[in-house]
Amino acid sequence: MKCEVVAVGTELLLGQIVDTNSSWIGEQLALVGIDSHFQTKVGDNLDRMVTALRQALERSDAVIVCGGLGPTQDDITRNAIAEVMGVALVRDPEIVEKIHAMFGGRGREMPDNNLLQADVPVGATVNPAMPGTAPGLMCPLTGADEGKIIYAVPGVPWEMQQMVTAGILPDLQERAGITSVIRSRTLRTWGQSESGLAEQLDDEIQRLDDAGTATIAFLASGWEGLKVRITAKAPTEAEVVAILDEEEQRVREIIGDIVFGLDDDTMESVVMELLRERGQTLALAESLTGGLIASRLTAHAGFSDVFRGAVVPYHRDLKQSLLGAPDVPAVSEEMVKAMAEGVCATLGADVGIAVSGVAGPDPHEGQDPGALWIGIHLNGTSEAVNLTLPFDRERIRQFTCIMALNMLRTRLLAA
Amino acid sequence: MKCEVVAVGTELLLGQIVDTNSSWIGEQLALVGIDSHFQTKVGDNLDRMVTALRQALERSDAVIVCGGLGPTQDDITRNAIAEVMGVALVRDPEIVEKIHAMFGGRGREMPDNNLLQADVPVGATVNPAMPGTAPGLMCPLTGADEGKIIYAVPGVPWEMQQMVTAGILPDLQERAGITSVIRSRTLRTWGQSESGLAEQLDDEIQRLDDAGTATIAFLASGWEGLKVRITAKAPTEAEVVAILDEEEQRVREIIGDIVFGLDDDTMESVVMELLRERGQTLALAESLTGGLIASRLTAHAGFSDVFRGAVVPYHRDLKQSLLGAPDVPAVSEEMVKAMAEGVCATLGADVGIAVSGVAGPDPHEGQDPGALWIGIHLNGTSEAVNLTLPFDRERIRQFTCIMALNMLRTRLLAA
Repeated sequence: MKCEVVAVGTELLLGQIVDTNSSWIGEQLALVGIDSHFQTKVGDNLDRMVTALRQALERSDAVIVCGGLGPTQDDITRNAIAEVMGVALVRDPEIVEKIHAMFGGRGREMPDNNLLQADVPVGATVNPAMPGTAPGLMCPLTGADEGKIIYAVPGVPWEMQQMVTAGILPDLQERAGITSVIRSRTLRTWGQSESGLAEQLDDEIQRLDDAGTATIAFLASGWEGLKVRITAKAPTEAEVVAILDEEEQRVREIIGDIVFGLDDDTMESVVMELLRERGQTLALAESLTGGLIASRLTAHAGFSDVFRGAVVPYHRDLKQSLLGAPDVPAVSEEMVKAMAEGVCATLGADVGIAVSGVAGPDPHEGQDPGALWIGIHLNGTSEAVNLTLPFDRERIRQFTCIMALNMLRTRLLAA
Repeated sequence: MKCEVVAVGTELLLGQIVDTNSSWIGEQLALVGIDSHFQTKVGDNLDRMVTALRQALERSDAVIVCGGLGPTQDDITRNAIAEVMGVALVRDPEIVEKIHAMFGGRGREMPDNNLLQADVPVGATVNPAMPGTAPGLMCPLTGADEGKIIYAVPGVPWEMQQMVTAGILPDLQERAGITSVIRSRTLRTWGQSESGLAEQLDDEIQRLDDAGTATIAFLASGWEGLKVRITAKAPTEAEVVAILDEEEQRVREIIGDIVFGLDDDTMESVVMELLRERGQTLALAESLTGGLIASRLTAHAGFSDVFRGAVVPYHRDLKQSLLGAPDVPAVSEEMVKAMAEGVCATLGADVGIAVSGVAGPDPHEGQDPGALWIGIHLNGTSEAVNLTLPFDRERIRQFTCIMALNMLRTRLLAA
C-alpha cells in the first residue's frame, strides 16, 4: 500500500507559505506503516491539478490532496477530483445542513458561496471528522483505478490533522490489511551528539532489528535537544504500550540521565516541575540570553507559583546596582556566581540561574563570541561553569538557554 | 520558460525535515519572472528520482534538483541525472583539486569518499559558485530534450542559495530571453489587516496593472507584521531602483505611518534606532510577555548603548518591591503606568515600556485571557492603552510584543 501527498496552492509554489502539512502527513504515514514515495506541490490550476492527481494515482494506491477546499473561486480541488473520477459534483444536503449549523452556532450570517463546500463528487463520502466548515472527502476510484482512493483535506493545519488522524489513517490501515496497533514514544535528550547516541545504542538497535519488536530513530532538534523515538507494533494497545515501556527502560539504562523528558515535555517544564516537587522558587539573571530563558519559561501556563521572575541586566552597571554583583569582569566566574545569588536576594527566590557571555558577532571585554559563564545558586551555595560555543549569535543564545536549564536539572536531581 | 523544483531526500518524505529549500527557490523564481508550476519531493531512490526528473522535464524547460550531492552512498543525484541524460559519470580533475584545497584550507584530512563529489555527468558543467565541498551541476539535455536543462544544488541551504543566486537564476533569465532587471522592495507594516490594506491600495494596484511598471503583493507574517512587496522590472539597475523609489513613495502616501521599515528592518531594530537618534535609553517591565520583548531586542547585536535591560516581575509582589508600583490590580491602567515609570527609575533609563495582562488559558484576577494593558513612560509622562486580544496564549504574548513596540514607535515619531 503506497500513499502520496499532493499539496495544492499557488502560494506554496511562490514560497509565500512553507508546506509543513505534507511533512506532517508524511510523518504520520511512516508511523502507521504506510509507504510514501512522492510528494507534489501544484498551483490552483485545474489542468495541472488533474495532471498531478493522475500521475500520483499511476504510482500509488492512495493520494491525500491537501488544500483547495475553501469557499472561494480559487478552491477547485473538488472539481479536479471529479474530473479524475469522471463524475459530476452534486450538492450534499447533509453537508449544507452542517455548514448552516456551524455558522448558526457561531452567531454569524453565512455567505452563500460557503455552500460550494457542500459540492461532492458522485460516489464520494465525507470524512467522519469535520472540525471546520470544509468537509474532507473520501473518493474511491472506479474502472481502471478500481481499489484506489483520493482523500481531500483542507489546508488549515488543525482541520487537516484531525481528518487525517480520525478518518484517513484508519481507512488506509484497513485497506493495507494492517490490523496491528503502531505507537511511538519520544525520549527527549540533551547532552550527547547524534553520532554519540547512535554508537551507545548500536547494540540495542541491532537487537531490535533481529527481534523485530520495535525500532529506534534519532531526530536532532536544535535547542529542543535530540529526540530518540521508539516505535512499536503489536496486535493490541495494551501490548504495544508494554513493548514501549520495556524498551524505554532499556534505552534509559543505556543512555542514562541525558533523558530529560518524554513526548511533549520540554526542558523548561521538566525543570519547573522538579522545583515544584521540592517547593522551591526560581529567579533568573539573564545577561547573554537577554530574556530568552524567561520567555521560554513563561510560554508555559501554570507555573506562577514556581517562577518568581527575571532581571535582564543588559547594561553592565545594572549587574552591580540591581543584583549587588562586585566590580569584576562581566564574563567571569565571580560575576555569574554573584548574579545568581543576587537575583535570589533581589527577587526573593530559592534558586537562581545567571548567564553572562559574549553573543557576538564582535568580541567583548577581550573575550571572543561564544565565551560564556553559567552560574547556579541552589541550597545556599553557588557554582559556575565555563563554556565556549562555536556558533553564531542566535545559536549561542539558544544553546545557552537549554544548557543553563539542564545544568539546574542535573543539580536538582543530584541534590 | 518554466522551471520546476525536485527536492531529494527520504528524510523530507518522512517529515523529519521540512522542505524550506523548495519554498525559497520558488520565491526566487517568481521574483525574476520564471514560471514554476510544480514542485516534487522524492526519496533517495534511483528509479524514483529518474521518474521524477523525467516527469518534470516533460512539463517544464528546466529543473532544479536540490539535495543528494553529498559524499555518502545515499547521495545519488549525480547518478540519476546521468541516467536521465543517457551519459556516464566522469571524475573532474578540477573539482578534485578544489575539494582537496578546501579540506587543506580547513586543516582537516579528507576522507576518500569526498571524491565521489567530483563525479560529473559527461556534458555537464559546474556551477560557478561553490561555497562548500559539493559542486553544483548545470546539465544541458540533448536529443528529444534539446534546449532543456537540469541544475543540481546541494540541500545545505546557504550553499544552495549562493548557487541559485549566482549561477542558476542568471542562466535561466538568459535562456528565457529576460534581459531586464527585476528587483523588489518590502515595506514592513503593522496595524492594518490584509483586506484593509488591499482596499486602501486597490486603486493603486489597478493603476499598476494598467501601467505594467510594477506589482504589489501582500504577505501576512504573524507578529512580524504584514509585508507589502513592490516588484518592478526595467532594462537597468538604475531604472528599476527609480521605479521602486517612486512606487514606495506612492504606497507610503496611501497607507501612511503603518509602514515601520523596509526589507530587513524589524520593529525592534527600528524602535532602537529611533531611540539612538534621540539619545534615549530603554528599559522594559514585562509581566505578560515574560521576557519575550527583551529577547527580541537582544537578538540584535549592537544596541547595548540603547537597551538598559528588563525586569520580568512575574510574581505580583515584585511589581511593588522592584518597581515601586502601588497596591492596585495587576492588570490595570494604574499598574502599567507605575511599572513603566518604575522600571525607568530602577534601571536608570529614559524610556520605559510595561505590559501586564492575562495570557491564559485561564482567567486571572477576574479578567479573561487576552485582556491586557500596555504602558509607556516617555519624556517624563506615562500613558497606557487597554487591549483585548482574542488569541491563544502564544499569540497573545507575541502580538503584545509588537503592539507595545509599535506604540512606542508612534509616540517617538509624534514627540
